[in-house]
Amino acid sequence: MIAKLLTAEEVTVALELLDGWCVCNDDLDDQLGLQKTYQFTGFTAAFGFMSRVALAAERANHHPEWTNIYNNVTIKWTTHASGGITDYDIKLAKKTESFAVSSGLK
Amino acid sequence: MIAKLLTAEEVTVALELLDGWCVCNDDLDDQLGLQKTYQFTGFTAAFGFMSRVALAAERANHHPEWTNIYNNVTIKWTTHASGGITDYDIKLAKKTESFAVSSGLK
Repeated sequence: MIAKLLTAEEVTVALELLDGWCVCNDDLDDQLGLQKTYQFTGFTAAFGFMSRVALAAERANHHPEWTNIYNNVTIKWTTHASGGITDYDIKLAKKTESFAVSSGLK
Repeated sequence: MIAKLLTAEEVTVALELLDGWCVCNDDLDDQLGLQKTYQFTGFTAAFGFMSRVALAAERANHHPEWTNIYNNVTIKWTTHASGGITDYDIKLAKKTESFAVSSGLK
């Protein structure tokens, strides 16, 4: 079953509960998604964070688009099958946030 | 000590020994580097590859710039302190290549 796209209003409500995320369609691909850049204390903290997200993503069968340059990670959640932002993206963004704060943010 | 930049001729010679790598300065940042995109059998193969590269990078204290979207990984090696491509990048590109071929390429 294809997940239902959230309305602009639903995305706005979800963003209010997330710290520092933005809706964008210009960075890692040209599809609307939720994106944030984290700065960690170093590479091991950044990759430790990525490893935790990777395991959660695999478990949820919903995977991020992300870029890592040393201690920086830019992560974007979007649902390709639906063509934009769905509940899956909100759920994984929340999980991402909890992993980040306990992985050594700078 | 800052690693010595390779000459264009030295980079060309190194590229001849690497399969499918290109010299670019336009993707993950605006610095000249060695770049390649791999397509794996799935996310776990892609992230398994990334984990192996991450450990080698940490050991060498030389870290990649990379993007992962599901089963695709684009990786770029460049030496920021030197402002371009050095022996470190060639060495890590070779290691990357050996990890990729044994990590489940599509």
